[in-house]
Amino acid sequence: MTDNWRKAAERLAATLRDDAAERDRRGAEPVGEVHLLRDSGLLTLLVPTELGGQGAGWLAANTATRVVAAADASIGHLLGYHYLQLWRTELFDRPELVDRVRRDTVAGRWFWAGVSNPLDADLRLAPANGGFRVDGRKSFATGASVADRLVVSATRTDTGEKLTFVVDAHADGVHPLGDWDNLGQRLTASGGIVFDGVHVPDEDVLGGQPADESAPGAVRLSLAAIAFQLMLSQVYVGTAEGALTEAAGYTRTRTRAWALSGVDSAVADPYVLAGYGELVARTRAAGALNDAAAAALGAAVDRGGDLTAAERGEAAVAISAAKVVATSVANEVTSTVFELVGARATANKHGFDRFWRNARTLTLHDPVAYKAREVGAHFLTGEHPAHTGYS
Amino acid sequence: MTDNWRKAAERLAATLRDDAAERDRRGAEPVGEVHLLRDSGLLTLLVPTELGGQGAGWLAANTATRVVAAADASIGHLLGYHYLQLWRTELFDRPELVDRVRRDTVAGRWFWAGVSNPLDADLRLAPANGGFRVDGRKSFATGASVADRLVVSATRTDTGEKLTFVVDAHADGVHPLGDWDNLGQRLTASGGIVFDGVHVPDEDVLGGQPADESAPGAVRLSLAAIAFQLMLSQVYVGTAEGALTEAAGYTRTRTRAWALSGVDSAVADPYVLAGYGELVARTRAAGALNDAAAAALGAAVDRGGDLTAAERGEAAVAISAAKVVATSVANEVTSTVFELVGARATANKHGFDRFWRNARTLTLHDPVAYKAREVGAHFLTGEHPAHTGYS
Amino acid sequence: MTDNWRKAAERLAATLRDDAAERDRRGAEPVGEVHLLRDSGLLTLLVPTELGGQGAGWLAANTATRVVAAADASIGHLLGYHYLQLWRTELFDRPELVDRVRRDTVAGRWFWAGVSNPLDADLRLAPANGGFRVDGRKSFATGASVADRLVVSATRTDTGEKLTFVVDAHADGVHPLGDWDNLGQRLTASGGIVFDGVHVPDEDVLGGQPADESAPGAVRLSLAAIAFQLMLSQVYVGTAEGALTEAAGYTRTRTRAWALSGVDSAVADPYVLAGYGELVARTRAAGALNDAAAAALGAAVDRGGDLTAAERGEAAVAISAAKVVATSVANEVTSTVFELVGARATANKHGFDRFWRNARTLTLHDPVAYKAREVGAHFLTGEHPAHTGYS
Amino acid sequence: MTDNWRKAAERLAATLRDDAAERDRRGAEPVGEVHLLRDSGLLTLLVPTELGGQGAGWLAANTATRVVAAADASIGHLLGYHYLQLWRTELFDRPELVDRVRRDTVAGRWFWAGVSNPLDADLRLAPANGGFRVDGRKSFATGASVADRLVVSATRTDTGEKLTFVVDAHADGVHPLGDWDNLGQRLTASGGIVFDGVHVPDEDVLGGQPADESAPGAVRLSLAAIAFQLMLSQVYVGTAEGALTEAAGYTRTRTRAWALSGVDSAVADPYVLAGYGELVARTRAAGALNDAAAAALGAAVDRGGDLTAAERGEAAVAISAAKVVATSVANEVTSTVFELVGARATANKHGFDRFWRNARTLTLHDPVAYKAREVGAHFLTGEHPAHTGYS
Repeated sequence: MTDNWRKAAERLAATLRDDAAERDRRGAEPVGEVHLLRDSGLLTLLVPTELGGQGAGWLAANTATRVVAAADASIGHLLGYHYLQLWRTELFDRPELVDRVRRDTVAGRWFWAGVSNPLDADLRLAPANGGFRVDGRKSFATGASVADRLVVSATRTDTGEKLTFVVDAHADGVHPLGDWDNLGQRLTASGGIVFDGVHVPDEDVLGGQPADESAPGAVRLSLAAIAFQLMLSQVYVGTAEGALTEAAGYTRTRTRAWALSGVDSAVADPYVLAGYGELVARTRAAGALNDAAAAALGAAVDRGGDLTAAERGEAAVAISAAKVVATSVANEVTSTVFELVGARATANKHGFDRFWRNARTLTLHDPVAYKAREVGAHFLTGEHPAHTGYS
Repeated sequence: MTDNWRKAAERLAATLRDDAAERDRRGAEPVGEVHLLRDSGLLTLLVPTELGGQGAGWLAANTATRVVAAADASIGHLLGYHYLQLWRTELFDRPELVDRVRRDTVAGRWFWAGVSNPLDADLRLAPANGGFRVDGRKSFATGASVADRLVVSATRTDTGEKLTFVVDAHADGVHPLGDWDNLGQRLTASGGIVFDGVHVPDEDVLGGQPADESAPGAVRLSLAAIAFQLMLSQVYVGTAEGALTEAAGYTRTRTRAWALSGVDSAVADPYVLAGYGELVARTRAAGALNDAAAAALGAAVDRGGDLTAAERGEAAVAISAAKVVATSVANEVTSTVFELVGARATANKHGFDRFWRNARTLTLHDPVAYKAREVGAHFLTGEHPAHTGYS
Repeated sequence: MTDNWRKAAERLAATLRDDAAERDRRGAEPVGEVHLLRDSGLLTLLVPTELGGQGAGWLAANTATRVVAAADASIGHLLGYHYLQLWRTELFDRPELVDRVRRDTVAGRWFWAGVSNPLDADLRLAPANGGFRVDGRKSFATGASVADRLVVSATRTDTGEKLTFVVDAHADGVHPLGDWDNLGQRLTASGGIVFDGVHVPDEDVLGGQPADESAPGAVRLSLAAIAFQLMLSQVYVGTAEGALTEAAGYTRTRTRAWALSGVDSAVADPYVLAGYGELVARTRAAGALNDAAAAALGAAVDRGGDLTAAERGEAAVAISAAKVVATSVANEVTSTVFELVGARATANKHGFDRFWRNARTLTLHDPVAYKAREVGAHFLTGEHPAHTGYS
Repeated sequence: MTDNWRKAAERLAATLRDDAAERDRRGAEPVGEVHLLRDSGLLTLLVPTELGGQGAGWLAANTATRVVAAADASIGHLLGYHYLQLWRTELFDRPELVDRVRRDTVAGRWFWAGVSNPLDADLRLAPANGGFRVDGRKSFATGASVADRLVVSATRTDTGEKLTFVVDAHADGVHPLGDWDNLGQRLTASGGIVFDGVHVPDEDVLGGQPADESAPGAVRLSLAAIAFQLMLSQVYVGTAEGALTEAAGYTRTRTRAWALSGVDSAVADPYVLAGYGELVARTRAAGALNDAAAAALGAAVDRGGDLTAAERGEAAVAISAAKVVATSVANEVTSTVFELVGARATANKHGFDRFWRNARTLTLHDPVAYKAREVGAHFLTGEHPAHTGYS
């Protein structure tokens, strides 16, 4: 499929778009959708060709996520997180484990998710039988209930060290709660999860969190947080793109010219035309800035172990800027398109509100004002964002 | 209850607010809510005291609508339309009929609705038995299915004259379709309605539409359309007010301070504080402009038969300006409050999205760009809006 | 002139509008303009009729300020400050002094200004000869160089008490610096001022600042700061109104229809029409909210010594909300009107930029984000703004 | 200098930034600035290396323009137009003339400008002495009075054909009017010009305008109009960048923390930080979209004679989208930065308003609503912009 990932993404998007409104209304666990992801071939996009993957790079993963998110923001979100979870195993110093999970991902058509909401109390890790026993509960474990493998972080109860490991999503003691019932991103299976005496062997442990930002490898490890931020931003842009595409289809075929407009077709109405133009232009700008941020992150990743804190900081700021713009665009576009389709498009059968619900929900992941603050602080003083779960 | 209408409105609002999210979720016909309206005493607000009403004026009806809409935009909408339908009977030259329906409204605790969507084909009126036979179908007959009496417009098939009349909402042949299934304003019973051989006696006919704007009484009759526009605008402002009230309750009691904020409570976060301030200020401005428009309309109404086209035009422009601002504020506020309550407030159990859904749906009633255009045309050239079903 | 103040304001506005662009370009001291103010009769608007004034109330002063500001924001600013300085003498407990200055204002056609920038170091007051000797320097003493009398605050070097007094603007030792050379409000004579051994007799002292907010009279005295805030906000709204009026005149008479617009006159261009409509509607909303704030302040003033801190707080919040909206509207309108007049209107001979320069300069008086914060804090927690020089 | 053009642009920008406010205030003809352009080596950026130029491509010219515009929007504008005028000679089928003017540009360090405002009446061309005689008057001939050579369009009085030619800016009969006295872009020498019997030999004629869009070469020739549009957009973005850079320098070193902010430095104020962040993020987005548009145009140019109308249309839409976003960003940023520097920064000695004046003036070049309309029409219906002087 080399080179063909874009077509694969577009094909999958077309399939998802067909019944996106209906699937959103049903709100079932995205089991079928994950099968579509497997069948699309996109799950192995970042796996090197010599291991059976597509060997594509970071930009491809970002683009594929956005293309899919435009059709179905939930599934784009799942795909983006899959890329991130599998990819971030590389940031630890366990090449053989990375190699193994990549090969197994190809062989088993694995779909990945993760468990790491930084705002909850940590999961607990107790040494046991050549490995660890994991206990505890986390909320917002996007995709975990439909995943094959999970990347999980937890804290050793004996040493206080925070470790990250991979674990079979169907292992004994892993209990997804199925309690995701929120406004948007309804098909992301973002409910909580309980770990009840789950066993993790030593060989599945990726490594620990560095003591501080100056520890060896710390800078590189810290890329995961900003890579997540960027992937969210790609889903925002995709959501805006999707809303515009769907709205345009409706305006073209169903919207009536306004009685007082003096034109005989909605696509000749000056306010409809300029209204689309404004939203399309702003969405393209958000997309272009996201592309630039993805290139900046890609360059940082490519620096490997030589990556400096300053270089990481520049990529972080580029991503924060992209997220600030994408947040604003996604929320504005998904609400304003209603003015371009008209009153009858509010019938629930059209399901137009899903774009706004998805954007509104996902853009609250972390408060955008603090992203703007990071960008401003950097511009004014050169300061780089602290390394946290959100920056 | 004279003087006490404000308290009555606030009492009703408190009752409605209690289970607004739940009732919205159920989406049942607003039968119970109409009973609450009857029990509140607010239905007779505009009926003169000598006929058993509250004898309050136009501003009171606008304010009561907004107060109720802040708690439940659907029920505020129903109440505002009730005021309008009963009130607009006065615009015709049938004082004894107006007198009768007012007395009966007091005696029978009638709730009024109307049938007149200007974008549908007209209902048909055929002379029959000292009156008329009505046939045809209309969409968007807000409140008709739960009303006692309707104000309806239809066109004589013999003369082509357009007549307006009152009719029992439970008369033989009146068939509400119950097909309202839209994004917002779910409790407004805004489905279609079929008239199948409904009989209307001559004494229930209010009168005809004037041939043109210069016919006697034409200017006064044309106030109905702009009074509707204003009532919509009041519901928009009420919706924004309601969203802010509910969001503030959540922020105060449930929103956690953001991890990177350096403050220990959401109500101390600088961005949350200024965020509310911006939205509250804009909502107050929309409310103040609506108040000014209501005063302008009240003054036009008080001019009775002396009302000139120019005076009517100034009121129309005042209302259009208010609607332009209220539209923007309602959509912005109801979406942006999510940034002030945070991610967990997107759980469906909170039902926060109903404010946006209500605003987004109702503000599409007619395209706001054409309202802005009216205001601009008047400012530039002194031109007054044409008399139409929307202006 | 009773009842005729509005006509007087409009007459003055017409006079000022005639050569506003040219006077702004010259940037001379507003000596002639202060003569126009004197001749207009507007300077005695708030003085009781029994003392020879117009006996008008607070709303009239606000409206007159706005009407004049629409023609010339500098002169509106001077007029508003004149009202405030003369009026705030009443807030102190010196009825005979208040009486005296009012009579003298009528007799001498006095124009008032003040010296009290809270961000500078205080002027120094040393007891001397049955009064005080004043020394020191203040910046931003709007209007002082063209005033007859000044209201000044300074701090006693012996007791540390802060006193407010009236002083002849032409007294020995009063030296305006004439150093106002800023972007906008060029005709406000807002340069610095030096007091070099100026003598103030005891009988011209209005009183001291209360020790804290709970001291007797403290609440009432604290109205001055918010009255200033409101007057600024009135000038903002007036500036937006003036920009729209001038732009509309240009669009009507000089703007060419755009080559690709398909219409033959700029006033038929759909984007021009809706563009004006949006700006006019927003400006009207800002005006309506300012009117409501002026009514709230008027009510607080009318409470006299019974005014509670909570009542003062509500008026303060109403004013802050008005200022938030007016700030945004003034800056947006004065910049966006350029899109409605077109490229050729940027010729300097038209002087269109003065509206933006005036708005941009004056709205920086104190940072608007902190006004939004006050409104938000009150909405969330009921907290009232602290009593400061800006709130 | 190959590869070093970016350093050259930054060096020139640094020089220009030093006294930009002062030069703007003086408003002299940009004679010295054109000398700086010559000395910078940037004038030959697009000339192939084998002819003595830098051999850089389209993106380099765009970037150099933006970098210089950030320091001085007038000079960036002159440089961008220089690139366009010289470059667009290639769009005609006169390779030997193109070759000659490129060589002479290197040898003579020529600075180019043009005369072609589409809204004026055409210049008149009459055949004379193996060439033509040019007569007439044009407004807005940016840079012509300080140029060495001009690209000019005029219409043959005998055949009605519109021809484009190059002419010595100092030829007999060329009279710049020096009448540019507008709000912004003061150093662009954008006054009118009179041609009074100017002789143009046949060998300096580039060619005619094609009869319609389907004529051979017509699509390629039509790239000039959109390349101008893009260059304007680059200057807009540069202006926003420049305003932010200058504002940040002021905030860092001079802005005082607000009295009520609770922080001790303006760069710690949460509203200042997020305020910069918002503006910086939006400016970066506009820049990224401009980069994408420049790449799209570059690709269209590289297609040479194979360029299709559809390909040209996609580039045109990309440029229109970029211009819509850049227009909004430039006007907003240059006005809003004042809130981040504070009241004292309005002193005229700082000259901060020049950024807004430049943005406000140049973004009126043609009405942005019609650019939004183009983007919307394309998105809705696939329609490509008509080939005009502005699209």
